[in-house]
Amino acid sequence: MTLEKVNNPNELKQLSVKELPNLSQDIRDEIITTVSNNGGHLGSSLGAVELAIALHYVFDAPKDKIIWDVGHQAYAHKLLTERKDRFHTIRKPDGLSGFVNRFESKYDPIGTGHSSTSISAGLGMAVGRDLKGAVNNVISVIGDGSMSAGMAFEAMNNAGSIGSRFIVILNDNEMSISPPVGALSAHLSRIISSKSFVTLRQMAIDVASYLPKSLEEMARRAESHAKGMVTGGTLFEEMGFYYIGPIDGHNFDHLIPILKNIKDTKLEGPILIHAITKKGKGYEFAENKPSKYHGVSKFEVETGNFIKKENSKPTFTSAFSQAICEAGELDPSVVAITAAMPSGTGLSEFSEKFPKRFFDVGIAEQHAVTFGAGLALEKIKPFVAIYSSFLQRAYDQVMHDVALQCLPVRFAIDRAGFVGDDGATHHGIFDLPLLLNLPNMVVMAPSDQDELIKMVATQMTITDMPSAIRYPRGEGVLEKTTSYGQTIPFGKAKIVNMGEKVAVLSLGNRLKDALKAKDEIFEKYGINITVVDARFAKPFDADLVKELAKNHEALITVEEGVNGGFGSLIGSFLINNGLLDDGLKFRSIFIPDVFYDNDTADNQCKKAGIDSVGIANTVSNVLNLKQRLDVING
Amino acid sequence: MTLEKVNNPNELKQLSVKELPNLSQDIRDEIITTVSNNGGHLGSSLGAVELAIALHYVFDAPKDKIIWDVGHQAYAHKLLTERKDRFHTIRKPDGLSGFVNRFESKYDPIGTGHSSTSISAGLGMAVGRDLKGAVNNVISVIGDGSMSAGMAFEAMNNAGSIGSRFIVILNDNEMSISPPVGALSAHLSRIISSKSFVTLRQMAIDVASYLPKSLEEMARRAESHAKGMVTGGTLFEEMGFYYIGPIDGHNFDHLIPILKNIKDTKLEGPILIHAITKKGKGYEFAENKPSKYHGVSKFEVETGNFIKKENSKPTFTSAFSQAICEAGELDPSVVAITAAMPSGTGLSEFSEKFPKRFFDVGIAEQHAVTFGAGLALEKIKPFVAIYSSFLQRAYDQVMHDVALQCLPVRFAIDRAGFVGDDGATHHGIFDLPLLLNLPNMVVMAPSDQDELIKMVATQMTITDMPSAIRYPRGEGVLEKTTSYGQTIPFGKAKIVNMGEKVAVLSLGNRLKDALKAKDEIFEKYGINITVVDARFAKPFDADLVKELAKNHEALITVEEGVNGGFGSLIGSFLINNGLLDDGLKFRSIFIPDVFYDNDTADNQCKKAGIDSVGIANTVSNVLNLKQRLDVING
Repeated sequence: MTLEKVNNPNELKQLSVKELPNLSQDIRDEIITTVSNNGGHLGSSLGAVELAIALHYVFDAPKDKIIWDVGHQAYAHKLLTERKDRFHTIRKPDGLSGFVNRFESKYDPIGTGHSSTSISAGLGMAVGRDLKGAVNNVISVIGDGSMSAGMAFEAMNNAGSIGSRFIVILNDNEMSISPPVGALSAHLSRIISSKSFVTLRQMAIDVASYLPKSLEEMARRAESHAKGMVTGGTLFEEMGFYYIGPIDGHNFDHLIPILKNIKDTKLEGPILIHAITKKGKGYEFAENKPSKYHGVSKFEVETGNFIKKENSKPTFTSAFSQAICEAGELDPSVVAITAAMPSGTGLSEFSEKFPKRFFDVGIAEQHAVTFGAGLALEKIKPFVAIYSSFLQRAYDQVMHDVALQCLPVRFAIDRAGFVGDDGATHHGIFDLPLLLNLPNMVVMAPSDQDELIKMVATQMTITDMPSAIRYPRGEGVLEKTTSYGQTIPFGKAKIVNMGEKVAVLSLGNRLKDALKAKDEIFEKYGINITVVDARFAKPFDADLVKELAKNHEALITVEEGVNGGFGSLIGSFLINNGLLDDGLKFRSIFIPDVFYDNDTADNQCKKAGIDSVGIANTVSNVLNLKQRLDVING
Repeated sequence: MTLEKVNNPNELKQLSVKELPNLSQDIRDEIITTVSNNGGHLGSSLGAVELAIALHYVFDAPKDKIIWDVGHQAYAHKLLTERKDRFHTIRKPDGLSGFVNRFESKYDPIGTGHSSTSISAGLGMAVGRDLKGAVNNVISVIGDGSMSAGMAFEAMNNAGSIGSRFIVILNDNEMSISPPVGALSAHLSRIISSKSFVTLRQMAIDVASYLPKSLEEMARRAESHAKGMVTGGTLFEEMGFYYIGPIDGHNFDHLIPILKNIKDTKLEGPILIHAITKKGKGYEFAENKPSKYHGVSKFEVETGNFIKKENSKPTFTSAFSQAICEAGELDPSVVAITAAMPSGTGLSEFSEKFPKRFFDVGIAEQHAVTFGAGLALEKIKPFVAIYSSFLQRAYDQVMHDVALQCLPVRFAIDRAGFVGDDGATHHGIFDLPLLLNLPNMVVMAPSDQDELIKMVATQMTITDMPSAIRYPRGEGVLEKTTSYGQTIPFGKAKIVNMGEKVAVLSLGNRLKDALKAKDEIFEKYGINITVVDARFAKPFDADLVKELAKNHEALITVEEGVNGGFGSLIGSFLINNGLLDDGLKFRSIFIPDVFYDNDTADNQCKKAGIDSVGIANTVSNVLNLKQRLDVING
């Protein structure tokens, strides 16, 4: 095995170029085996094996900075940079991150989990290097999907004018997570189909002409720009980059010479290398169905079959899928918008049933939200389905184009709460402080899949303001879902168990833990506490909260989110209405102010103290139950 | 006066084309006179007078939707759409908004105050129209600066592939707020300088060839695309738009025929008209110094001189300007980043003193933040200066690229709190819930200009985590500022007045009102309450809070921001540590959950109840002072 000889980039450099294809094969085998056990991002990482090898063969990381956009293409990079021995722990509790993580390795210059950050970060590193007078290369590797995000454009626009030496490698697999969308993608296809891969000899000539070493040549180009010529090249040339490509991103005879040439040239300014790769390369099933094998759970290597958990229950995502399809069936003005996540957000079925009413706008959350606002103005009923952590990128649009305009855009916020093995970049734990403090915004959270279906039906009836449902990744508590159609009363909570002394006001998915805590408290102390499913975080059920405040010694909120959200709303209501002045105790259980690495979602809840144990402890502490018990037991 | 004849688009259409230049002159006079009295956005609105007239002359608003990006170019549009009589109230309390506002007029399809939203919103309206089978035009008018934002790119990318009929007018004055930056701007310059304005005859031919009416022609084009030709045109053509231009945006002989032609054609798909205009057109001072006359305070029309308020005190912005320059002088690794706001954020002087350490990245807040992260990784000390309301657009980058990476990016957040006459789109009232609930983030707020200067010096010492200072628009309380250099103790508050019964914990600018409330309470009830300048919102001074909790009957927080921020942090600390269980009362004064229109900032504070009256009322209510006084007075 060639991989046995390589633990770091220096050992890689001892290999001959002829050995590299064998190394690629070893790395692919390792990735396929590990991901089949751990789950993870298979397709992107398989597509970038040769890129990772070539970059580390030619450049000198960590002195040279190699920034892998999104991070999910970086498994080969991890295997080559002193993490081979721990690779089997990827995405496991206490294991390697599934993304790039600067706290994990000196070879990861900055963490990347969200898309399209690599050019901005890389440009900053390049400019920082120049300010210090240091000499090293900065290379950002970004997919064609990530390139479609506005942030990447902003960075290209800045890089094209700043003039620092900086290399962008466009890893173009014509496929981000889903089939490509958008004009940029069409442009890339036109470039590729209009040019055949250049041969090594042609490439040497190309590079020579693209990368003139003499300053005179530079001056000549600058002059022609100053004269106001429209260069009429690719979009990247229009943006001020030196464009090289397309090159075969799986062929070392292409990759090595061109990267060496670029490394050796003293050219100032940004360079874009357009490399064509195949998503899932080297694993037949993934090559044939790249969307299906983008992010995967455990699977059987021989057959490509996913290994299903026994007795698995419907996920919240599938419940949303059912509800949006039924809503779309009943009302022809329902449309669905996603930002490159049709499958992950449960919109695949809707897209097949109603192709004309389905919009995948690409990795473009900002646009997705305001596009929804425009549709709502035309009395169309848009559902904007975005993961909680990615909706962060559209906060300003939610505020300025939806909430301030008071438009009935309907947000379906999947992956709200802890997401488990994807770790810190992907948790959906910040959405509540963001959304709840925006005027006009209605926010619901379902405690089970049927509640989600009812909430979607309820959103259909909210026609004069924006509304959002936040729900977690993974399974709900119900074995099966009921049919669509029932709504829930606006702004009303649901009493699940009317008891005494303490009322736990639970938001969303935390209900199952609140009920478990109730049982534990009853078992241990014989006290039957009240448990309420809040249903609405905003407007919350103020009448019921007042009622509970009257009839209980203590009130406790619990939510799967950080401070500043549901508990903060309830707390300020209680405080500013003087409801805590006469002895009522209040506690707010939220996720403490730290970041949480990859682990199971259950463990993350436990660490955060928002699980049944945390709730039961809070109940027992607020009532001094242990002390009371000690007194009784004397 | 021609303007006398025109109150709405129908009346405009009664004029002959020959009368339009006179109308332009009348509108310019009206804009100059009104803005000289009210302040406002002068340059952009003067530059778009002919565009507004031509659009309303040719198209049929409100059936046709005309969306003015940013809204500050829309004064002529307001004058033409039934708001002439109220135009003198613009930006005044209860007056017209200084931006586009859908609650103000049926001619404003959607509110626009932040930049670069118009293409997304317009595309949504165009697609909505198509889904309904309606027939109308949708026109987004966007400046060259706004076009550089990522959001505009995302929308262009989607528009270029969706294929709905949709018109974008690029109002290119080679100048957003400041001189243009970025590769896109260079591209536009190249287009302009490589092509002379087309004559009317040429234009007719151009339009005919650009806008083929036969479907065969469409098919031919589609086929050539399918064949994979790289079109090699402008960036807009690469993005799938039909590009027309450049045309003279001040010449009705150009504007009217081409807009009519476009209106009449049945062409599907997006069209971009590139119109060249001059910022400040028709007012000499503004033409010569477009940055200076972009957004203005009151001025004298004859001389262009700004009318200074008597006895005006230094602004927070100027204090920041002083501090960042002194920091830059002392430490060569200090750099400053702005997103197209060098003057507004007080960075002009820094940019002149240290041009190589100053980065204006264009309207690109997302990139600005992550670019700063990249610099911080290279041990450069970046200050990112962005208005509070615009930082909203970079929330995800603050979370993912700065806070999660734990990088010492230093945020200087100007315009935090109410901004007065710019109104709802521009208030900086949401930043506290956003920033305070991110792990690793340090947040300070100064009570006067010297405090701000000290906090900048303190930020320089925070080298292992991100930090932010939020400060308001306008003057501080001090007559003059002292010199740079002193720091403040990390995480410590400052007791301004140690008194009794009630402790007011004030964040930032609210201190002056808290002190006024203290005086009022003393005068009225003879009680000398405690007032504390929190200085740090995070980490807040937990020891002092505990101490205050012990020695007072009530604790009150006050901040110029919405719920979920400082009061929420203090509240959850008190609650979850049981500090409210034994009789201590707590109140949190924050901005209630509604949007606030243009008014003076003082009035906005009053309406929100966060002024001295609101604070004094809260103090008197929490102590039942009125009742006590009634009892005493018998």
